[in-house]
Amino acid sequence: MGVLLQEIRRTPVLWLLVFVPAVLLAEHRWPQAHTLLFVLSVLAIVPLAMLLSHATESVAAKTGDAVGGLLNATLGNLTELVIAVSALRAGEIMLVKASIAGAIVTNTLFMLGASFLLGGLKHHTQEYNRISARVQAALLFLATVALLVPSAVADIDGARDNTFASQLSVGLAVLLIAAYALSMLFSLKTHRELFASAEHGEDAEPPWPIGVALATLAVITVLVALVSEVFVASVQEAAQSFGMTPAFVGFIVVALVGGAAEMAAAFSGARKDRLDLSVGIALGSASQIALFVAPVLVLLSYLVGPAPMDLQFWPGAVLMMLIATMTASLVTNSGRSAWFVGVLLLMVYVIFALTLYLLPPRAA
Amino acid sequence: MGVLLQEIRRTPVLWLLVFVPAVLLAEHRWPQAHTLLFVLSVLAIVPLAMLLSHATESVAAKTGDAVGGLLNATLGNLTELVIAVSALRAGEIMLVKASIAGAIVTNTLFMLGASFLLGGLKHHTQEYNRISARVQAALLFLATVALLVPSAVADIDGARDNTFASQLSVGLAVLLIAAYALSMLFSLKTHRELFASAEHGEDAEPPWPIGVALATLAVITVLVALVSEVFVASVQEAAQSFGMTPAFVGFIVVALVGGAAEMAAAFSGARKDRLDLSVGIALGSASQIALFVAPVLVLLSYLVGPAPMDLQFWPGAVLMMLIATMTASLVTNSGRSAWFVGVLLLMVYVIFALTLYLLPPRAA
Amino acid sequence: MGVLLQEIRRTPVLWLLVFVPAVLLAEHRWPQAHTLLFVLSVLAIVPLAMLLSHATESVAAKTGDAVGGLLNATLGNLTELVIAVSALRAGEIMLVKASIAGAIVTNTLFMLGASFLLGGLKHHTQEYNRISARVQAALLFLATVALLVPSAVADIDGARDNTFASQLSVGLAVLLIAAYALSMLFSLKTHRELFASAEHGEDAEPPWPIGVALATLAVITVLVALVSEVFVASVQEAAQSFGMTPAFVGFIVVALVGGAAEMAAAFSGARKDRLDLSVGIALGSASQIALFVAPVLVLLSYLVGPAPMDLQFWPGAVLMMLIATMTASLVTNSGRSAWFVGVLLLMVYVIFALTLYLLPPRAA
Repeated sequence: MGVLLQEIRRTPVLWLLVFVPAVLLAEHRWPQAHTLLFVLSVLAIVPLAMLLSHATESVAAKTGDAVGGLLNATLGNLTELVIAVSALRAGEIMLVKASIAGAIVTNTLFMLGASFLLGGLKHHTQEYNRISARVQAALLFLATVALLVPSAVADIDGARDNTFASQLSVGLAVLLIAAYALSMLFSLKTHRELFASAEHGEDAEPPWPIGVALATLAVITVLVALVSEVFVASVQEAAQSFGMTPAFVGFIVVALVGGAAEMAAAFSGARKDRLDLSVGIALGSASQIALFVAPVLVLLSYLVGPAPMDLQFWPGAVLMMLIATMTASLVTNSGRSAWFVGVLLLMVYVIFALTLYLLPPRAA
Repeated sequence: MGVLLQEIRRTPVLWLLVFVPAVLLAEHRWPQAHTLLFVLSVLAIVPLAMLLSHATESVAAKTGDAVGGLLNATLGNLTELVIAVSALRAGEIMLVKASIAGAIVTNTLFMLGASFLLGGLKHHTQEYNRISARVQAALLFLATVALLVPSAVADIDGARDNTFASQLSVGLAVLLIAAYALSMLFSLKTHRELFASAEHGEDAEPPWPIGVALATLAVITVLVALVSEVFVASVQEAAQSFGMTPAFVGFIVVALVGGAAEMAAAFSGARKDRLDLSVGIALGSASQIALFVAPVLVLLSYLVGPAPMDLQFWPGAVLMMLIATMTASLVTNSGRSAWFVGVLLLMVYVIFALTLYLLPPRAA
Repeated sequence: MGVLLQEIRRTPVLWLLVFVPAVLLAEHRWPQAHTLLFVLSVLAIVPLAMLLSHATESVAAKTGDAVGGLLNATLGNLTELVIAVSALRAGEIMLVKASIAGAIVTNTLFMLGASFLLGGLKHHTQEYNRISARVQAALLFLATVALLVPSAVADIDGARDNTFASQLSVGLAVLLIAAYALSMLFSLKTHRELFASAEHGEDAEPPWPIGVALATLAVITVLVALVSEVFVASVQEAAQSFGMTPAFVGFIVVALVGGAAEMAAAFSGARKDRLDLSVGIALGSASQIALFVAPVLVLLSYLVGPAPMDLQFWPGAVLMMLIATMTASLVTNSGRSAWFVGVLLLMVYVIFALTLYLLPPRAA
C-alpha cells in the first residue's frame, strides 16, 4: 500500500481516483442523474486505466521476458476490454462496435498525430526506425483489412443477412485469434529484434513488488468493471443531453477514455525524442484491437450478452478505419516526422469527430 | 508595356491573347452563339493564365522571401479561383465542385504523368528528392482525405441532409483554412528546406519591374473574370452540342484550362531533368486546391452566390480523387521514374475522362 | 517423346496427366456426373498447366531474347485464357469475370503470401530488390485501377446502363492492350534491367528441343481447351453439390487451378532465397491479367460468345482487387519479408475465400 500511495502522490492525475468512490456513491444515491454519472465515470476510469497499465508492466517485469511480453501485450488493452464487456452485458452492441472502430482510429490518428506534434514542437525533425515501423504498419493494415473486408463486401452487395453475418463473424474471430497467437510468436520469439523499442521499461519508474502488482491488477480490474457499468448505463442518456450521437460517444469518448494510459506513455516518448516508442505503442495497440480485442468480444458475446455480436460495421466506420490505417502506413513509411504531419493527422481526426458529432443519429 | 510586348513576342502561346478581345466582342454581338463563345473563351483563358502566373512570380520575387512565398502559394491557383467564383455567381454549383475535383485529379494524374513521360523520353531514368516528395504526397493525401471524408461518410450512410451538409462544410472549411495557414508556416518558415526545390526562379527569365507586374496582375485578373463569365454562361449549352456531360466539362476542360500555366512550368522542369520541380508543382498545386481553394469557395458562396455551396461531392468524384492521391503517393514513393510510369498515369487519367464522357448525364 | 516421358518420370505431379484421358472418357460415358467430371477436370488441368508453362519457356529460350520474352509474357497466362474462352463460349460470363478478379487476388495474396511463408520458414529474413518490386507493384496498382475504376464509378452512381457499360468496356480494352504493348517495350527493351530477375531460366532444367516444345505447346493447348470445356460444363452443378457459390468457384477454384504452374515456380524461388523471382512472377502475372487477359476476353466475347462481356465487376470483387493490389504495394515496399507477413497475406486470402463461400448466392 505504501508503494501505491507514493505513486499517487507523485502522479497528479491519480488524484482523480477520488472519483471512483464518488461515482459508485452517486450511482447509489441518484441512479437517474445520468449526466452526472457519465462525467464522474469518465473521470474515474482515466486514473484506473493508468494504474492498470502500471500494474501490468510491473507483473510483466517480474515474470521474465516471454511471459512478460505476452502479459503486456494481452493486458495492454484491458481497460477497453472491460468497458466493452460491460456494454455487451447491457446489450449495447452498437456501443461496442463503435468503440472497437474508434479505438483503431484514435490510436492511429490521434495518438500518432499528437505524438508527432508534441515531439515536433520540441525537435525540428524526428527520425525513427522505419523498418520496424513499416513492419508494424503492414501488420496493422492487414489486421484491419481482415477485420473489415467481410462487412464491406456484404454491405455493398446488400447481403445483410443475419445467418451469413454471424457465421462469418465467428469464423473470422477464430482466424483473427489464431493470427494473433502467431503474431505473439513472431514479435516475442522469432523476430523480437524488430519490435525491440516497443518495450518501454528502460527509464521508467522501478516496478512494484509482485504481490502489490498482482493485488492491484485484480482490485483495479474489478473497479474498472464496476465503474464501466455505471458508464455504460448512463452514457446513452447523458450523450443526448450533451447533444452527442451514440456513434460519437463510442467512437471518440470511449476510445479516448480507454486509451488514456497508452497515450500518456506515447506522448512522453515523443517528447523525449523516442518516437520509435510512440509509433510502436500506437500501431501495436491498434493491431491488438483488430486481432485480439474485437474477435474475443465476438466470442464472449455468446457467453455474456443477451444477443450475439457480429463483425458487421456500418459503412462510415469501415471507411474511417481503412483511411486511418492507410494513413498510418503512408505517414510512417518515411521514418521521419515534423510537427505539421502531426497537425494534419489531428485535423483528419477532428474532421472525423465533427462528422460523427453532426451526423443525424438515425444514420449512425 | 515594352516588357509585356517583348514577353508576348518571345512566347508564341501569348499570341492567343488576341482571343481576349475576340471573345468579349463576340459575346456582345452573338450572345446566343454558345459553342463559339465557349471555344473562344477557352482559347482566351490559356494565355491569361500564363501571364497571371508570370506576374505573380514577378511580384513575389520583388517582395522578399516570406511574403513572396506566401503570395506565390496563395495566387498560384488564382485562375481556378476566378473561374470558380464566376461559376458560383451564376449558381453553377455542380460546375464548381466538378472543377475542384478535376483540378486535384488533373494535377496529380495528368500533370505528374505527362512530366514523367516527357522527362522519360529524354532521360533513361530520372531521380528526384524522395524525402520532400514523400512529405508533399503525405500532405496531399491527408488534405484530400480531410476534404472528402465527410461526403463519403454522409454519402454511404444515406444522410444527404441539407442542414448536416452545410454545417459540416462550413466547419470543415474553417479547419482546412487553418491547416493551410499552418502549412504556410511549415513550408515557408520552420521547414523550408524540405520544399526548397519548388522555388523555380533560378534559370527563369528576369522578373518584370514591380509596377508592371502589379498592374498586369490587376488587369489580367479583371480580364480573366470577364472571360470566365462568358465561359461559364456558354459552357453548359456548348457542352451539349459537343456531346459532353457537365461532369466532363468541369472535371476535365476547366481543370486543364485553369492549370495551363502550372503545367507549362512542370513540363519544362521535367525536360530539364529537374523532376523535383515538376513533382513539387503538381503535388503542391493539388494540395492547395484541397486546403485553400475549396474551403475559400465554400465561404465565398455565402457572400456572392445565389445559394451556399457545401463540400458534398458525388461518389464517383470522391473515388477518383482518392485514387489519384493514393496513386501520387505510391508513384512518388520511390524517388525515381521512367517513361512507362508516365504512360500509366496518363492512361488512368484518360480512362477517368472516358468514363465521365460516356457517363449518362443524369448520373453525374 | 523421350524428353517428355523423362520429364513426366522426374516430376511426380505430372502423373496426374492420367486424369486427362480419364476426364474425357468420363465425359463421354457419364455426361451427367457433374461432380465427378468437375473433380477429374481440376486434377487434369493442373499437370497440363505445368507442361504448358515448361513448353512456353522452352520455345522462348530458343527464339532469342526479345521474341522469347514476348512469348513468355504473352503465353504466361495461357491456361487462364483458354479456360476463360471455354467459359465465354458457354455464355458463363459471371464465371469469366470472377476468374479474372480471382486471378489478380490469388496472385497477389496467395502466391505472394505462400512465397513469403515458405521462404520465411527456411530463412530468418529475406531481402529482395525493392526498386524493381516497387516499379512492378506500381504497374500492378495502376493496371488494376484502370481495370476497375469505370465499374466502381458506374456502380456507385447507379448507372448500370448497358450501352454505357459496353461502350466503355471496349474503349477500355483497347487502351489496356495498348498499355500492355508499351509495357512489353518497357520491360523487354528500354528498361529490361529493372525486370532482370524475373527471367527464371538460370538453374532450371535444360529446355526441350524446339520441335518437341512447339508440338507440346500445340497439343497441350488443345487438351487444355477440351478439358476446360468439361470443367466449365460441370462446374456450376458440381459447385452446388459442394455447397459452393459460383463466385467462390470462379474466384478461388479457377484461379488456383489456372495459376498452378506459376505458383510452383514462385514457391521454389522463395525456398531458394530468390524472392525477387517469386515477387516478379506474382506481381507480373497479376499485371498481365489486368492489362492483357481481361481486355482480350472483352474483345473475344464479340467473336466467340453468345453475348458480349463488359468490364463491370460486382462491388465486392472491385473491393477485393483494390485491397489485394494495395496490400501488394505496401508489403513489397520495404524489400524485406519474414514468415509472419506471409501468414497475414494468407489470412486475408482465407478471409476473402470464407466470405465468398458463405455469401448467399444471389448477392454474388
